[in-house]
Amino acid sequence: MAKTNSGRFFEDYSLGQVIEHAVPRSVGAGERALYHALYPARHALYSSDEFARASGLPQSPLDDLAAFHVVFGKTVPDVSLNAVANLGYAEGRWLRPVYAGDTLRSSSEVIGLKQNSNGKTGVVYVRTRGVNQRDEVVMEYVRWVMVRKRDIDAPAPETVVPELSKVIDPADLVIPEGLNFSNYDFGQAGEDHRWDDYEVGETIDHVDGVTLEEAEHMMATRLWQNTAKVHFDATFRPDGQRLIYGGHIISLARALSFNGLANAQMIVGLNGGAHANPAFSGLTVKAWSEVLDKAETSAPGVGAIRLRLVATKGGAPFELKGDDGKYLPDVLLDLDYWALMPT
Amino acid sequence: MAKTNSGRFFEDYSLGQVIEHAVPRSVGAGERALYHALYPARHALYSSDEFARASGLPQSPLDDLAAFHVVFGKTVPDVSLNAVANLGYAEGRWLRPVYAGDTLRSSSEVIGLKQNSNGKTGVVYVRTRGVNQRDEVVMEYVRWVMVRKRDIDAPAPETVVPELSKVIDPADLVIPEGLNFSNYDFGQAGEDHRWDDYEVGETIDHVDGVTLEEAEHMMATRLWQNTAKVHFDATFRPDGQRLIYGGHIISLARALSFNGLANAQMIVGLNGGAHANPAFSGLTVKAWSEVLDKAETSAPGVGAIRLRLVATKGGAPFELKGDDGKYLPDVLLDLDYWALMPT
Amino acid sequence: MAKTNSGRFFEDYSLGQVIEHAVPRSVGAGERALYHALYPARHALYSSDEFARASGLPQSPLDDLAAFHVVFGKTVPDVSLNAVANLGYAEGRWLRPVYAGDTLRSSSEVIGLKQNSNGKTGVVYVRTRGVNQRDEVVMEYVRWVMVRKRDIDAPAPETVVPELSKVIDPADLVIPEGLNFSNYDFGQAGEDHRWDDYEVGETIDHVDGVTLEEAEHMMATRLWQNTAKVHFDATFRPDGQRLIYGGHIISLARALSFNGLANAQMIVGLNGGAHANPAFSGLTVKAWSEVLDKAETSAPGVGAIRLRLVATKGGAPFELKGDDGKYLPDVLLDLDYWALMPT
Repeated sequence: MAKTNSGRFFEDYSLGQVIEHAVPRSVGAGERALYHALYPARHALYSSDEFARASGLPQSPLDDLAAFHVVFGKTVPDVSLNAVANLGYAEGRWLRPVYAGDTLRSSSEVIGLKQNSNGKTGVVYVRTRGVNQRDEVVMEYVRWVMVRKRDIDAPAPETVVPELSKVIDPADLVIPEGLNFSNYDFGQAGEDHRWDDYEVGETIDHVDGVTLEEAEHMMATRLWQNTAKVHFDATFRPDGQRLIYGGHIISLARALSFNGLANAQMIVGLNGGAHANPAFSGLTVKAWSEVLDKAETSAPGVGAIRLRLVATKGGAPFELKGDDGKYLPDVLLDLDYWALMPT
Repeated sequence: MAKTNSGRFFEDYSLGQVIEHAVPRSVGAGERALYHALYPARHALYSSDEFARASGLPQSPLDDLAAFHVVFGKTVPDVSLNAVANLGYAEGRWLRPVYAGDTLRSSSEVIGLKQNSNGKTGVVYVRTRGVNQRDEVVMEYVRWVMVRKRDIDAPAPETVVPELSKVIDPADLVIPEGLNFSNYDFGQAGEDHRWDDYEVGETIDHVDGVTLEEAEHMMATRLWQNTAKVHFDATFRPDGQRLIYGGHIISLARALSFNGLANAQMIVGLNGGAHANPAFSGLTVKAWSEVLDKAETSAPGVGAIRLRLVATKGGAPFELKGDDGKYLPDVLLDLDYWALMPT
Repeated sequence: MAKTNSGRFFEDYSLGQVIEHAVPRSVGAGERALYHALYPARHALYSSDEFARASGLPQSPLDDLAAFHVVFGKTVPDVSLNAVANLGYAEGRWLRPVYAGDTLRSSSEVIGLKQNSNGKTGVVYVRTRGVNQRDEVVMEYVRWVMVRKRDIDAPAPETVVPELSKVIDPADLVIPEGLNFSNYDFGQAGEDHRWDDYEVGETIDHVDGVTLEEAEHMMATRLWQNTAKVHFDATFRPDGQRLIYGGHIISLARALSFNGLANAQMIVGLNGGAHANPAFSGLTVKAWSEVLDKAETSAPGVGAIRLRLVATKGGAPFELKGDDGKYLPDVLLDLDYWALMPT
């Protein structure tokens, strides 16, 4: 098996190391349609080229989460093939829309390392950047994963845990060039609620539910060239279940959030996120949101809104953690992001 | 839940009301490929740009039924979210082909209202129009649905039941500009049978069968941004089954009808249709057709043929209704449409 | 049923007969994205337009196997609708890349006929050619199938068994015009192993596994307009299972082979292939390869490598046949092909 990639283990990472991930990917009309087939996505900016143009963009960009998935997918063979757990995200920013015809590459810099006290695993922190064919950074984010050691006798590296912002300062959010919501058509977008209508602390039950299917999560995960075998091989886990890629749940919950947040058009910041419990085929996913913050932006008619997006597989909306501070068993996802909304 | 859309109830409709449906949609190469992946579609005009050009069109249009599904999907949040039943279609006409790059919007006018005698529900008649980015109407149709009342004490509206044509007069069918079947290549189209070869009353068993899958009907239905939860949420119905969007059965039956009607290239009129019984995953759908009428058109080499298309989940072909005049339990769909065929 | 196609039977073929298959097909961005959603395809030349341009091509071509499937799919109604078994492939060559916007047609010439001794079936040999809208041949291959007779009393044709090359002479492989791997980026391609690093006789376990789903193989098979009912209709076989199109296993195995053969970029020759055992939903497919031969080419930096690609549904890698010379029950596919690789 000398020629196959068995992935990196904890001792293969070193601080400051930059990994150029393989297999650049061109995206276009096919990825766009598939995103609409796989998720109940309805945000008008991504559905209608005309709506995007009326908002100052040349056409509909690739869905922000699809861009994230492509960039993320490339990192899997190098970062998470031997990961025990995906521990968190921080400092995610979308820096430039991705359009049909663009080709994306990813690279990751190791910004932190910490061996666990059991000596068998360690935590690796990477800052990943996605760039297009013009070498423009289209997005970046930090994630940290727990990775197995190949050799438990390998010496522990010096512990470096990066200081990460809990929340992206709204002043650091990048608004796509030309974005203008001054003439925003609320009727076409689907809801009348504007930035002014949302209050910090407000919660929204997105009502709808979608039952997960093996064929759908596998097609979605493959589309982003994410190759982690646990998503595809029913013989990999003792229980015969395929673990669903966490990003599938993110996209599903975001699409469900249209109902109540139809005007939270563009995602520009990812403050943090946790895949609270694993998701499997047959579960029915629902979603709720909480308004965490609001901020003005310099773009005409554009406000920023910070949202908590929670995906569940049951239970009542708005319940997140138990008395022990742990996520309730029905919670699948707790995501904290900034979106742009007409004021 | 103030910010989520809980749909309109019977008393929210008024005669003459025009509802502009939300979320315009751009279509392109992705929708075209997905249509071929989801349905066994083989009509040459939609499969080959070269065949379309040889027929006088600039390229292959989006499948006529895909155009219908996009226009229809937009109406769901406003018309059928609280519908108990989809009762019928009439006066459907395709007025202009939809091409890659087009962006579609829909609006519906309330043309009839009739409260049911139980006082709990009523029938709403709407005429829906789909327009492209140049505000050209691409299709229109009437449908009527039974909708719940929010408040059973709300007063009944004046009963208005629109007079609807049972059949579209062939003179009112719109032939796409430039369509010309004078040099039609029957070999490339797949069958030799021309308009002259079909006789009124003739029946055709389309032979092939396709077994329904959850992932496929959900992807199809999402692709058209149809959000009715009964199609996606296995917890919605007490029996745990997801009801399949009726349009999925229409597209499947039409694609199956290639075998025997390969030259019924374009659908231009929808005279009526009934979803006779609900469809669920695991059923195997077959189809048969009956020639109901024929008419000449003004376009070179182009004839119109009126067809009954029946989808079944079993039983013998050509059996439609029992002695009681009701659809047999194996019948899923009874559709009456006009298509264009080389003479 | 006079108007439906019931397929050709053995006695409907005659030596030298040329069948022009119906329904030309235009391909584009949608087919490309679906191929990536349905298979874990990662070869950089097909994933990235930039990588393709750096290799001397105008953009990424349609995956070579997708081109094969489109050409093959058209032949099904004329060649294999009444086939009992798909017996083999030979002399397959890819002659010209297929690009978005191309429209493909197929034709087949009957090059051999042999009635079986039971008098009920016969073997038909056809050479199939796929051409684009400029009438340029994009690929050709020979396949032979066992076909039922309609009338077992029909006289046997003269037996003609064509002489077929066991292996395509590397001098006969067609290298796409302009292909140049002189500046090949191994980092972006995903692996460092070049043509020089592979030795004849070397075997590679591709490690990953993918579990088969009904919705996925049906969508894939429909996408190529392959209409053989055994793939779609769960009522067709007594055991209620849908037989999976052999080409689905070919594409799946080829995509899995990325892990260890990431630089085997383009497929240019199909020496032979056997679908050793039928595949059904629920099985988990793994793959291994063996290097059978190597050859130089005239293109800069481009070598040819002959590979055996084996797909299995279990068992150990590198085991192919039992002591009786028959394929082991876990073997699904044994394919012999030429690929192009950077030297």
